[in-house]
Amino acid sequence: MGTLVASCFVVAILQIAGLCGGVDGAYVKYNTGAGVVEGKLNVHLVPHSHDDVGWLKTIDQYYVGSNNSLQGACIENVLDSVVVALARDPNRKFVFAEMAFFDRWWLEQTPEKQEQVRKLVDAGQLEFINGGWCMHDEATTHYIDMIDQTTLGHSLIKSEFNKVPRVGWQIDPFGHSAVQAYLLAAEVGFDSLHFARIDYQDRAKRKDDKSLEVIWRGSKTFGSSSQIFTNVFPENYGPPDGFRFEVDDDFEPVQDNTLLYDYNVEKRVNDFISAAMTQANVTRTNHIMWTMGEDFTYQYAESWFKQIGKFIHYVNKDGRVNALYSTPSIYVDAKNAENVSWPLKTDDYLPYADRKDAYWTGFFTSRPALKRYVRMLSGYYLAARQLEFLVGRRSSGPSTYGLGDALGIVQHHDALTGTAKQHTTNDYEKRLAIGASQAEAVIDNAISCLVSKKPGGQCSSPALNFGQCQLLNISFCPATEEDIPDGKSLVVVAYNPLGWNRTDIIRIPVTDSNLVVRDSSGNTIEAQFVDMDYVTINLRNFYVKAYLGSLPKQVPKYWLLFQVSILPLGWNTYFISKAATEGERKTTVLSTLANPYNDTIEVGPGDLKMLFSSTSGQLVRMFNSKTGVNVPVQQSYLYYASSIGDKDNPQASGAYIFRPDGARPTIVSRKVPLKVVRGPLVDEVHQQFSSWIYQVTRLYKDKEQADVEFTIGPIPTDDGVGKEVITQMTANMVTKKTFYTDSNGRDFIKRVRDYRPDWHLIVTDPVAANYYPINLGIFTTDNKTELSVLVDRATGGASIKDGQIELMLHRRILKDDSRGVAEPLDEMVCIANNSTCKGLTVRGHYYIGINKPGTGARWRRTTGQEVYSPSVLAFAHEKMEDWTASHVTVATTMDSSYSLPRNVALITLQELNDGSALLRLAHLYEPGEDAEYSNLAKVELKKMFAGKTIKEVKEMSLSANQEKSEMKRMTWKVEGEVAAEPMPLRGGPVNVPDLVVELGPMEIRTFLLKF
Amino acid sequence: MGTLVASCFVVAILQIAGLCGGVDGAYVKYNTGAGVVEGKLNVHLVPHSHDDVGWLKTIDQYYVGSNNSLQGACIENVLDSVVVALARDPNRKFVFAEMAFFDRWWLEQTPEKQEQVRKLVDAGQLEFINGGWCMHDEATTHYIDMIDQTTLGHSLIKSEFNKVPRVGWQIDPFGHSAVQAYLLAAEVGFDSLHFARIDYQDRAKRKDDKSLEVIWRGSKTFGSSSQIFTNVFPENYGPPDGFRFEVDDDFEPVQDNTLLYDYNVEKRVNDFISAAMTQANVTRTNHIMWTMGEDFTYQYAESWFKQIGKFIHYVNKDGRVNALYSTPSIYVDAKNAENVSWPLKTDDYLPYADRKDAYWTGFFTSRPALKRYVRMLSGYYLAARQLEFLVGRRSSGPSTYGLGDALGIVQHHDALTGTAKQHTTNDYEKRLAIGASQAEAVIDNAISCLVSKKPGGQCSSPALNFGQCQLLNISFCPATEEDIPDGKSLVVVAYNPLGWNRTDIIRIPVTDSNLVVRDSSGNTIEAQFVDMDYVTINLRNFYVKAYLGSLPKQVPKYWLLFQVSILPLGWNTYFISKAATEGERKTTVLSTLANPYNDTIEVGPGDLKMLFSSTSGQLVRMFNSKTGVNVPVQQSYLYYASSIGDKDNPQASGAYIFRPDGARPTIVSRKVPLKVVRGPLVDEVHQQFSSWIYQVTRLYKDKEQADVEFTIGPIPTDDGVGKEVITQMTANMVTKKTFYTDSNGRDFIKRVRDYRPDWHLIVTDPVAANYYPINLGIFTTDNKTELSVLVDRATGGASIKDGQIELMLHRRILKDDSRGVAEPLDEMVCIANNSTCKGLTVRGHYYIGINKPGTGARWRRTTGQEVYSPSVLAFAHEKMEDWTASHVTVATTMDSSYSLPRNVALITLQELNDGSALLRLAHLYEPGEDAEYSNLAKVELKKMFAGKTIKEVKEMSLSANQEKSEMKRMTWKVEGEVAAEPMPLRGGPVNVPDLVVELGPMEIRTFLLKF
Repeated sequence: MGTLVASCFVVAILQIAGLCGGVDGAYVKYNTGAGVVEGKLNVHLVPHSHDDVGWLKTIDQYYVGSNNSLQGACIENVLDSVVVALARDPNRKFVFAEMAFFDRWWLEQTPEKQEQVRKLVDAGQLEFINGGWCMHDEATTHYIDMIDQTTLGHSLIKSEFNKVPRVGWQIDPFGHSAVQAYLLAAEVGFDSLHFARIDYQDRAKRKDDKSLEVIWRGSKTFGSSSQIFTNVFPENYGPPDGFRFEVDDDFEPVQDNTLLYDYNVEKRVNDFISAAMTQANVTRTNHIMWTMGEDFTYQYAESWFKQIGKFIHYVNKDGRVNALYSTPSIYVDAKNAENVSWPLKTDDYLPYADRKDAYWTGFFTSRPALKRYVRMLSGYYLAARQLEFLVGRRSSGPSTYGLGDALGIVQHHDALTGTAKQHTTNDYEKRLAIGASQAEAVIDNAISCLVSKKPGGQCSSPALNFGQCQLLNISFCPATEEDIPDGKSLVVVAYNPLGWNRTDIIRIPVTDSNLVVRDSSGNTIEAQFVDMDYVTINLRNFYVKAYLGSLPKQVPKYWLLFQVSILPLGWNTYFISKAATEGERKTTVLSTLANPYNDTIEVGPGDLKMLFSSTSGQLVRMFNSKTGVNVPVQQSYLYYASSIGDKDNPQASGAYIFRPDGARPTIVSRKVPLKVVRGPLVDEVHQQFSSWIYQVTRLYKDKEQADVEFTIGPIPTDDGVGKEVITQMTANMVTKKTFYTDSNGRDFIKRVRDYRPDWHLIVTDPVAANYYPINLGIFTTDNKTELSVLVDRATGGASIKDGQIELMLHRRILKDDSRGVAEPLDEMVCIANNSTCKGLTVRGHYYIGINKPGTGARWRRTTGQEVYSPSVLAFAHEKMEDWTASHVTVATTMDSSYSLPRNVALITLQELNDGSALLRLAHLYEPGEDAEYSNLAKVELKKMFAGKTIKEVKEMSLSANQEKSEMKRMTWKVEGEVAAEPMPLRGGPVNVPDLVVELGPMEIRTFLLKF
Repeated sequence: MGTLVASCFVVAILQIAGLCGGVDGAYVKYNTGAGVVEGKLNVHLVPHSHDDVGWLKTIDQYYVGSNNSLQGACIENVLDSVVVALARDPNRKFVFAEMAFFDRWWLEQTPEKQEQVRKLVDAGQLEFINGGWCMHDEATTHYIDMIDQTTLGHSLIKSEFNKVPRVGWQIDPFGHSAVQAYLLAAEVGFDSLHFARIDYQDRAKRKDDKSLEVIWRGSKTFGSSSQIFTNVFPENYGPPDGFRFEVDDDFEPVQDNTLLYDYNVEKRVNDFISAAMTQANVTRTNHIMWTMGEDFTYQYAESWFKQIGKFIHYVNKDGRVNALYSTPSIYVDAKNAENVSWPLKTDDYLPYADRKDAYWTGFFTSRPALKRYVRMLSGYYLAARQLEFLVGRRSSGPSTYGLGDALGIVQHHDALTGTAKQHTTNDYEKRLAIGASQAEAVIDNAISCLVSKKPGGQCSSPALNFGQCQLLNISFCPATEEDIPDGKSLVVVAYNPLGWNRTDIIRIPVTDSNLVVRDSSGNTIEAQFVDMDYVTINLRNFYVKAYLGSLPKQVPKYWLLFQVSILPLGWNTYFISKAATEGERKTTVLSTLANPYNDTIEVGPGDLKMLFSSTSGQLVRMFNSKTGVNVPVQQSYLYYASSIGDKDNPQASGAYIFRPDGARPTIVSRKVPLKVVRGPLVDEVHQQFSSWIYQVTRLYKDKEQADVEFTIGPIPTDDGVGKEVITQMTANMVTKKTFYTDSNGRDFIKRVRDYRPDWHLIVTDPVAANYYPINLGIFTTDNKTELSVLVDRATGGASIKDGQIELMLHRRILKDDSRGVAEPLDEMVCIANNSTCKGLTVRGHYYIGINKPGTGARWRRTTGQEVYSPSVLAFAHEKMEDWTASHVTVATTMDSSYSLPRNVALITLQELNDGSALLRLAHLYEPGEDAEYSNLAKVELKKMFAGKTIKEVKEMSLSANQEKSEMKRMTWKVEGEVAAEPMPLRGGPVNVPDLVVELGPMEIRTFLLKF
């Protein structure tokens, strides 16, 4: 037809002519300078990029932009292009959160670029929010780690920009904790806290009654004095649909050039106003916030700012609403200025489900080995910094910084959570291992210095080449396995990072049972030898090969146990040497069948006893001969079959989500082979629940707890079914659906099965919906007994039936749960260049305590702190006489008569760059938890820092980036609140002559000390 | 296992420590300032972005970055971010080609930004190469369009930057034409031409003998005087594998920060050197070029420059090769400086196959309606600019710019080619239609002015409201269909854009046969009425509805034909009015069966006769009673079934690629109903080949050609088979595999079936491999006859058997050919809001001429020019007497006795912004083509511009951006060449008093005239 084809556009021509009449497409100066306008709906546009500190890629891959086949993301591009874009228009703003990334970028910049960035920060164009090293998870993190990683980031912002972040920005974590709200937001000095993920049912109700924005009082103890204005987004943390402007995204740009086709200004302005009205309808006041960014957006920042600028210009020209460049700080200031009342929120936002049967309660347990490694290194980092402080930081050589950096990174909400890809997880673990090895060198050096008798605290020179043993849990410790030469001893120096005296049972692998243990005075002390069990030997054989590439030639035959006693922030020394005569082993091995009396077997060298059925091999009762607590209790292992989705709902169980395939778990075995080992220090009950579950329960003479060591794995999946393994303790107790779980290892929160305080819970998944994260412990109570279980890492836990407590200890799943990680949670360990792989075996501990009602807190708090901060052991070989001649064998670094009160923990002691010390003290008890300990505690700094003179004490905010006295707090009105709450008990100011720190229950105080 | 997991990285730790030793990750100043280094392999890194002026998206969608679901691409981002990136490092360079995009961007910039860009251009950091409005196709474009679109772009570069592009950059077009090489490269003033796509067999051979880079002499006529250094890339126009750095691409960045993991500087340097050596092995001299960019890359330019800069720094630090920021100009300067000899290349690089059975010969025909629309508007644009010049440009109101812009865009190698998506094609057509409607207004106005008798060339006021008819080919012309009121006439003003007198048969639809036609003197002239055939009526009914949305109430019953005669660059006026008496129709309709004499029917009122078989209805012979040429010739329609891929090769036929499913086409019908219409002006033979192929062959009394009008479509695809429809003329001639096809409508190039001059062709697809693009015509010859076929648009053509010529006229294909467009070429036309759709019907013409050997050129050249530049018709209704009283009815704008020589065409006459005129004259004949016309021609400007005084004549380069005298030409040595070629015949300088322009054969001369 030739000439015809185009004429169909005659109508189009006329339309365009009409639209374009008289206007040309030349340069347009966009008016982007709008501020808040009273009386209009203000749409606060907050440009941000959500930059996971590792997830589908490693942190460095994200930073440099490699491995883009997994995810197109380069943080260097984000920061580069944001700075250029901000410089192009002084009205533009951008908020940035993840300081681990910023730190990488900052170091690479020229002084000129740094100066430019400082100006952008000073002008408020670039604002750091949250400002931790990462955006930490809130379910599986320990509060000490949260504080440490936040401090690391805040310190960078303070030192480079002299700024203090005002905004908590936890937009992505999978549920939100009480400790986050009151401690890591309010006590850090934030004015507000912002996030996206709350339960879908909760969100629906809050949208309905406009209660997405609340005053959150996360602490029962501190109430309004640690409250925080909290902004929960109506959807996720991205912009409304159609307003995502990432380079290469499919969006409809504002086309305002009349010389071009598809002019759409009016349409897009209407789109904007429509989206704003939708949000205004679920939001109080005339201010709404749009989070203008998503995961790793702003690769080319101009792409966003260009569109946002046009919208501000044309929307404000339209005039129906007011659009402005904003930040969460500006937004919250505007909210605060409205002076209206807000709903009150207490407790927390856990657990989180984003839709039906999609409870994000699987990640409470996912990657249990990583979770334990992080927890172990957390305590190690605390001890290492203490020791670094005690001997003085070295100007060169290994430091604790690497471990702090790695721990800071791994608190990220896709790291510790177990929701990163395997290769990323490997990267996290590599970073931790490198950090640990550097900290190990710091500790070796510090102990060398401390124990040296040379005058003036001079260190041994050369430093003693101490051995430490990171793989003790699988019985690998070259220092202790080595043959002890005649005349020499294996010297064990045990350092106690606690502020209290402690007594521990040390367990080390040895090849010889003909050994004697002497204390620092040379007196032989009781030792117990336990045959190495085959499960541990098999583990050792496979994992040592997997980790070190080869097998040590010798296999240790025994565990050597002995009791140590260590002064607070002090050490003690023990000497192990060959015995003059053979056969001093004092262990008894009792096989199940050997002594079936009364159908039960009683074990326990101390007050706490456990009874096992000799027929079923299972626990039947626990009782305490001193307190009289006596409770029938069973314990068994079960597993939930992981759902792969069903006809009603395609949701599978996975790294994030726990979705059992049916409500009831499968019991692993009803009849359990059992072996009892008895000795002077410990009784051990070995139970083989199956070929892949082995449990050793230890009862120590001087401890009122059952120390349960589990070894689980490889979880079999030959049947094609993913499995989520639990230990279940079923006590004969009337617990009325109620139990208690900790918040980040600190406050205990009351949980009620099938119930949420904030809305009427519709239960579709009766197991997954009742899981909560456990970092310290879980307990339940009736009028006779408190049954408590403490954990050694982050773990999911629940009480699905009255009297029952379960912990999910391991998960192996064959399907992905469609939340982005796109890998099944199927952890493998390989040897011989990956030619032989096995599913991961996990070994760990949980601790069971039984107490009279109201007395469990003391056991939980003390034991919890000991589990978190174990003694640090260092080994050497030397003649005992030589050692004692040149070393201090037992000492405390505090005043020799002093120890911290039992209700106070030293959670940070660290020398800073300028030589001052960062000190954090934490009261461990909640009000009313314990008759004696839930009271004001006092720490005498002079005695604590014996031998040093404190010149200055400044009390700081929790993250130590501002003086406590300078912290300002916004005031907020709470709906229905008439009278002020009673003031919580807090310690008073620290006077310089006295130097006594008072701490009220749950109080944490942070100080900068100068000596 | 807790503590174990990380220790597997002990080995990794040590490795990292080794790598990182002593170096930190702070700011690195990259040394990117390398120039060419003698004695080393120089790797010229040329940052570029290949930005299709429409393809998967429309040009404006590409510019603003909308519709990114089809392709993530925003040219605004490219230019924005490139300018920012160039400013960051003065060593960075970037080349840009497509001025249609640059123009959009440039207009939107602030004066400050424009100033910054001018500085970057002056510093050589930003270089415009190619510089046309688009990167035009070379197979389906007409040379006049190529010149016009190049001029449009070059004029922008000249006026805004005072720069003249030095580089031909045709990196993507699908094969390369001789006219491109000698005319659009050499004659434009380029030093070099660069591209990627040549036949895979050719490329393999050229890599083998290092002949990718050649001296190309595209013109037989001009030889070395229009040669060009040509660089064919070893692969495509992207960088070597692994060196593509688009934001979000998956590449391995140079990781040189020792504080981060995955440090890889040595590895990446080795990667670079390895890729460089691979290319050096197929390249002459110590210079290789890397095209650092691909389709729509540099969305965020920094992503590329960051990597390239690091490579330059580290590769040069390594020192084995020298890497530098470069441009094709710098590269070619370096090549030229080497002073070595280069292989010679003549003819062209057509057709193109990128692999076996993948001949890109389908696009020669794809979207034939678009191709005709473009060709029609090309002639219309030429005429419109003439008329605009003749009456003087108006300062406001419609201009010809819009049509020039649209035609400039549509020359793009994915536009006119038919290889854009349908929606993009619609956009092209819309632009053309808008441009055409503006040009129509210009023409209306200009004719109003010209024909006015008012003194001083004043225009009629108000301007006459002329009607023009863009849809005449489907018999839709409201102006002629309207009832002519008593006493009034339908006034037909016919303008002749040719430089010669012309005689045409005008055909207009009318509703009444009782009409008489009078000439400008009032004398009645012969008219012929032909019944409107039902095929045309059906077409009209459907397509008018499709294009205008509703059907006109009346259907014209007849075509009215009459002969017009028009002076060069002049006009004539005809008056049609109701006849005093009925029944003057002088047409005879003869049905097939009515007169079967001698089994054949002879038609033709003039010298040329055609004989048709009355039994088969098919053509059997053509002869010319004057020249005595007499040739048995059959003509039929056939189709190739489109391949959908087969077991040997998945390649399907599609928009780009022609791959027939088997070698032989299917004949549409062997017996054809036939109807003959005879009359005083024309004999018509109507043949219904099938329900979807209708053909009318017209033989005019005064023309020695068969004008064949075909109507093809909708091509049936109910059988699930795509079809590619050809017309085949089979003459009894001995043509020895040889035939001739034009290059872009200009030079004829000899083609030999199953043969390529440059390499030994392995024929796997004997049909597709022998197709060539036709823009003017195709001919073949033996010792008795020259058989020529001219086309009205770009068309694929071939001679698959001796004596045979075929043209592919229409294609409808159900599968995509996997070259990116991702749509089958299945064009539909719809009515009633797309509720009724039909496959596209295509109507057009081809023209058959038979001549004695050596005499065909005159027919081809003259007829070709008349087909390209038809008369422009404007219609009005007025009393004849009134009209003649106030209007000049017949005139030329030249000296009344003057016409251009018959061998010279006026191909540009255009008033420029400054009031000067751009004049292009083209000699139409090659040396030796015609005894009379293949000689030096002379144009007398004084007579041509009668009534104007020429003050200044400047001869310019072809694209008019520099004076001819200032053009510099590089000298190159050609392998094996000993003596200089004889100088071609070219016209001498134009002397001011004489003002005579001489033109040698094939010469095109461009002038700027001031009056």
